[in-house]
Amino acid sequence: MDSMYAYSRLYNFSRNIFLKTGFNEADAETATTVLLSADLRGVDSHGISRLTGYVRLCEAGRIDTKSAPALIHETPSTGVVDGQAGLGLVIAPYAMMIAIKKAKAVGSGWISVQNSSHFGIAGIHAMMALEHDMIGIVMTNASPIVAPTFSVDKLLGTNPICVAIPAGEEAPFVADFATTTAANGKLELLQRKNQAAPNGWVQTKTGEASTDAFELKNGGAMLPLGGDREHGSHKGYMLGSIVDIFSGVLSGANYGPFVPPFPAYLPMPTVMPGKGIGHFFGAMRIDGFRPAADFKTDMDNWIKQFKNAKVVNGFDRVIIPGEPEAAMQLERMRTGIPLYESVVEELRELGDKFGLTL
Amino acid sequence: MDSMYAYSRLYNFSRNIFLKTGFNEADAETATTVLLSADLRGVDSHGISRLTGYVRLCEAGRIDTKSAPALIHETPSTGVVDGQAGLGLVIAPYAMMIAIKKAKAVGSGWISVQNSSHFGIAGIHAMMALEHDMIGIVMTNASPIVAPTFSVDKLLGTNPICVAIPAGEEAPFVADFATTTAANGKLELLQRKNQAAPNGWVQTKTGEASTDAFELKNGGAMLPLGGDREHGSHKGYMLGSIVDIFSGVLSGANYGPFVPPFPAYLPMPTVMPGKGIGHFFGAMRIDGFRPAADFKTDMDNWIKQFKNAKVVNGFDRVIIPGEPEAAMQLERMRTGIPLYESVVEELRELGDKFGLTL
Repeated sequence: MDSMYAYSRLYNFSRNIFLKTGFNEADAETATTVLLSADLRGVDSHGISRLTGYVRLCEAGRIDTKSAPALIHETPSTGVVDGQAGLGLVIAPYAMMIAIKKAKAVGSGWISVQNSSHFGIAGIHAMMALEHDMIGIVMTNASPIVAPTFSVDKLLGTNPICVAIPAGEEAPFVADFATTTAANGKLELLQRKNQAAPNGWVQTKTGEASTDAFELKNGGAMLPLGGDREHGSHKGYMLGSIVDIFSGVLSGANYGPFVPPFPAYLPMPTVMPGKGIGHFFGAMRIDGFRPAADFKTDMDNWIKQFKNAKVVNGFDRVIIPGEPEAAMQLERMRTGIPLYESVVEELRELGDKFGLTL
Repeated sequence: MDSMYAYSRLYNFSRNIFLKTGFNEADAETATTVLLSADLRGVDSHGISRLTGYVRLCEAGRIDTKSAPALIHETPSTGVVDGQAGLGLVIAPYAMMIAIKKAKAVGSGWISVQNSSHFGIAGIHAMMALEHDMIGIVMTNASPIVAPTFSVDKLLGTNPICVAIPAGEEAPFVADFATTTAANGKLELLQRKNQAAPNGWVQTKTGEASTDAFELKNGGAMLPLGGDREHGSHKGYMLGSIVDIFSGVLSGANYGPFVPPFPAYLPMPTVMPGKGIGHFFGAMRIDGFRPAADFKTDMDNWIKQFKNAKVVNGFDRVIIPGEPEAAMQLERMRTGIPLYESVVEELRELGDKFGLTL
């Protein structure tokens, strides 16, 4: 059974943990807001369950709690942020804000980030653009657990893409997805329940098709969206590659097989051509293209066309990207956030270490 | 058996057909270069086999041979081009050139296009960025033949994305793919051979899974990359939607179910909230992020990591996006372009009408 925890309770706990770990108040609050946005939106794999992992990275010296990100190169619409080996949860909003400022000035802003670490869910950063009547675009690379089409070697992360687009009366369109057949969090859920994975999610360590949800732990790999060549895995591989190049190569971060891991107990790659992990942020002003009001009227109409589509037997209706997450957020702000007992135990241990109560 | 035709022979024929159809010399040559780039790169479904289709659209008055595209709104890094109901093959290079000019001035350029028509393959337009040491990004929407996840209705086109990225000694990275499990051209190939389609490519007119390659002609639909929900079709649906919104809604073109069809014998949609079909073009200067030489060194290294990956039994090696198309281009410039007899016959009929010999 899961226990329910009020947002404010988890917020205070996480904020205090980040403070005790060495972050200043502003960073501790930013990091907490970003981290818990995952729990609120139902992406439990990227929320407070990772707090211990972030603390371990700080303790291992892989994340510098005292550094501040800096814009090290720019043109009017582009630039590179050096995360200074800091916390991705803090670096990402900083970089996205620069993209938004550039968009205000010249129509769009594009920031590639080097020397960062895990930034939580992409969605929360992309959604920063919405209140400015901008489209937000966010990508990040991640440590290699995905095998490209025909490969045994793992050369890509689950490399998510998020695109957030404002609407009028309708809720915004927020597409936030890993470029693999399934997100790693979905695989972990199957492991927890000891269930098999569908075809096309994973392969064995020699590249054979498999439905074993533990395949990754046996040396296997996750698969790009599509699963196999016949079902378009080369397209998932291309998407994951684009994310890796925009985030890693364009910024001077690590890329492909060289991206450092999240768990602090895993060794760092022996070769690292760049610095830390990489992200990519974009913002485009709607009225850099057409009046925002006109755009929103058409977006509302777009959304209605999809909501009102005739549906395959057995399903309710077509889902608009971001809808389930927005509904989850409303519900969890009201009813609280459910945590697995194992997560609660881990958080309690963490709290004990710092003299904090969950 | 296919007959082989030299590039120059097809070039002259296509150019003369466009001239006879009413285009001026510059437009006829641009259109021909773009059209034949598909044949050269092996995307036979988008090349000269479509010449008759373009001519029919002109004859039906759906494409204006005398109009010229115009930039109707802009900021330093963004803008909208009105295609003035002209030919997409001509409008696309015009819009991409503006994106490149803006990138030269302020680091990046982003152009959404309304009131256009089919623009050939996305790849050729995105690759225009490469010689300027820029990344090129191209999208287009298309008439609705794809059913979003859970939908019976067809609300999206095959909506391709292309991203072209320069490298150093290695050939550039060029990812060019439809956001469906398989491109429509692949389905047409199976129809020609009377073969079944793999699972996850199409569904029946009531939304049931199917392997009938003729399903689309029976009222069925193509499926978003992923095929079904369990295999990530919601991600393909999100990708196709992003392309549709960037191309159609952002520009003021038609979108979703309202995008006009390519075949001139199909009726126009009864409701059209926008103008023509929409495209989206982007260019980012590499040195808007980091020195181009450093980037290219890392891109070469990136490509080598993938080329040298350990491979699943039975395969040669991991393919770099754009490699097969570049090899095909070299070969076909040398040996000629193979055309199906049915295509040759159609082109001969077209030539006869204008007093031209293929």
